[in-house]
Amino acid sequence: EAFFVKKVWRFLKKAWDLGVDDPRKFIHCLKVGIALTVVSLFYYMRPLYDGFGGNAMWAVMTVVVVFENNVGASVCKCLNRICGTSLAGFLGFGVHCLASKSGPKLEPFIVGSSVFLLASAATFSRFIPSVKARFDYGAMIFILTFSLVSVSGYRVDELLGMARERISTIIVGTSLCILVSMLICPIWAGGELHVLIHRNMEKLAISLEGCTSEFFQSNGGVDDKNKESNEKLLGFKCVLGSKANEEAMAKFALWEPAHGQFNYKHPWKQYLKIGSSIRSCAYCLEALNACINSEHKVPESIMEHVSDSCLTVSSNASRVIRELAETMKTMKRSSTIDVLLGEMNSSVQELQGNLKSLLPENGTPIMDMIPVLTCVSLLIEIANRVEAIVDA
Amino acid sequence: EAFFVKKVWRFLKKAWDLGVDDPRKFIHCLKVGIALTVVSLFYYMRPLYDGFGGNAMWAVMTVVVVFENNVGASVCKCLNRICGTSLAGFLGFGVHCLASKSGPKLEPFIVGSSVFLLASAATFSRFIPSVKARFDYGAMIFILTFSLVSVSGYRVDELLGMARERISTIIVGTSLCILVSMLICPIWAGGELHVLIHRNMEKLAISLEGCTSEFFQSNGGVDDKNKESNEKLLGFKCVLGSKANEEAMAKFALWEPAHGQFNYKHPWKQYLKIGSSIRSCAYCLEALNACINSEHKVPESIMEHVSDSCLTVSSNASRVIRELAETMKTMKRSSTIDVLLGEMNSSVQELQGNLKSLLPENGTPIMDMIPVLTCVSLLIEIANRVEAIVDA
Repeated sequence: EAFFVKKVWRFLKKAWDLGVDDPRKFIHCLKVGIALTVVSLFYYMRPLYDGFGGNAMWAVMTVVVVFENNVGASVCKCLNRICGTSLAGFLGFGVHCLASKSGPKLEPFIVGSSVFLLASAATFSRFIPSVKARFDYGAMIFILTFSLVSVSGYRVDELLGMARERISTIIVGTSLCILVSMLICPIWAGGELHVLIHRNMEKLAISLEGCTSEFFQSNGGVDDKNKESNEKLLGFKCVLGSKANEEAMAKFALWEPAHGQFNYKHPWKQYLKIGSSIRSCAYCLEALNACINSEHKVPESIMEHVSDSCLTVSSNASRVIRELAETMKTMKRSSTIDVLLGEMNSSVQELQGNLKSLLPENGTPIMDMIPVLTCVSLLIEIANRVEAIVDA
Repeated sequence: EAFFVKKVWRFLKKAWDLGVDDPRKFIHCLKVGIALTVVSLFYYMRPLYDGFGGNAMWAVMTVVVVFENNVGASVCKCLNRICGTSLAGFLGFGVHCLASKSGPKLEPFIVGSSVFLLASAATFSRFIPSVKARFDYGAMIFILTFSLVSVSGYRVDELLGMARERISTIIVGTSLCILVSMLICPIWAGGELHVLIHRNMEKLAISLEGCTSEFFQSNGGVDDKNKESNEKLLGFKCVLGSKANEEAMAKFALWEPAHGQFNYKHPWKQYLKIGSSIRSCAYCLEALNACINSEHKVPESIMEHVSDSCLTVSSNASRVIRELAETMKTMKRSSTIDVLLGEMNSSVQELQGNLKSLLPENGTPIMDMIPVLTCVSLLIEIANRVEAIVDA
């Protein structure tokens, strides 16, 4: 039993740490609580409240289902919900009229086949990438509302009043959601994406510098020097896996209104391009890292011959990346980026010259640098071009 | 207007192709249609049907919300829904009793604060990775049901009957979902994962072979030879981005009962390990590919000197990967894998010997092979070990 308590305690501890690391998670929870309490009490207090299963529940349900971590996702879901419900409501109403006119024998067939057809079609539409990216939730809500309306055995005039009330409660719910998520410590998907890309660039720069310096300065030397720096070295591993996250953020950012430093039509797709350039650079770094950890011994003479110019190249490259990160952050065209780029390219030239003057017996480590160099210069060209677009 | 029609037509064409490429998408749509029609008609026909907003809608809603593309995801959502609803129902009932006993003045406060507290806590729990992986949907349903129950102004005895009916309709909905998704052309998340990993291995093998042979056989030669083979070469790009997909599948596979060749406790996590080994190999291939596309010209003499042994290494390595893929597919310990491994290792040795006997003036391309070789042998060791576990 003590074991169980301990386990629960450790679990709670871990959960608490999670929140302390990122206090916005706590804030998000409080926001959900506030929105839900407000809408609950609003309908709880209302004198014209007409019982469970009435329309109040739709407002509550909307808040629960729609409220998301960032503004873009909430707005996206709200609009989807409203559109899906309205569209399905109209269609369902039409089918209902048709069915009720065609006599009691034919009615179940019409209802059943229309549900079958539209549900299948809407489900299929969720597989189409362009629909999935924007209207996935809307399609689900469409199916839901349509089948509810078709199944309902109500008379037509009641149905109309019902539909009006239903849509009005959903609008109350969604607008409350949007208000709370925008006004109380908003978390913008666009801002998140911006910070994510910026941080990835910095991680990349640190890793690049760290890897090369570790390789040349402690070749076969002390391995377990300090764990902390080692963790920094492996910062690029995060970059490798951040694709899905970036894409989700960019998707939601499209739905957000202008906020802070971003306009409504901010070119979010450029961020994805930058992100993928960063990632292709990280792949090269991964390969380089594998070389560092391999057990090839390198003659001292060669190491000395190239280590200086290699270190210069990597520090120049990481300075360029840092400058780009800074440019990203401030969203202003950097004045020094061209100078830094020039320096980097000239140091690459120097390294290549250095290599030509060298006749290695076993040139492993030098050559391992080549892909990184080419990759870095590639990245910088891409990123530089993209920057120009972003800041234009 | 003609432009618009054309656009719509192209969109429909694309959607149709999507379905033709993977007919299971069509089947899934039909399954959703069938499930929904059955449940709708079931409640539509029932004589004791008591109007819109009654309990029938919960069965319809359950089917719409819970039905997913693969069995694991459906089962996971079903169980989550049932557990979340029951738990929240009990708690909500308790709070409701407490509130109704404490007099009309205190009641809104008790209801409001309990909704606030539990909604915040449940939202927070969705951030905890271990909870998120399994009970994300359940937590949402918990919040939903709890606030609905608390807000409902019903008398206690009515509430109990309501709860019983509600849960019974949800169970009808979920069991229908599970039946349909399991019995009509089931798509198992585990099977999908299995095929995905297998296909990724094959793509990797093809790409590895293709890249090296292109590099050595047409160095600076014809570039736009055939697009088709080029697409095959880039097969490893898919491998790079398949992480999120693999993880989702493995998550759902945990929920699936025994089916086909898989037992209930099939070690799905091993698949993730294999997947990440494959990916680390693909990173190296990405670096290699960058070298191929770079513009370094290599002296013919060097090319001739190493091309044979490089090609041997890469073809041996890709044969090992193919054999592993085959092993994966049949889930039987391969008898030839050790022989192939030995061959590969000896060819690596040979290549290294070859390199030592060579004094290149400009040894770029040879060395570019090194990371790939080390990486491949690394991968094979990992994958081999993992295989042993899987088949044990």
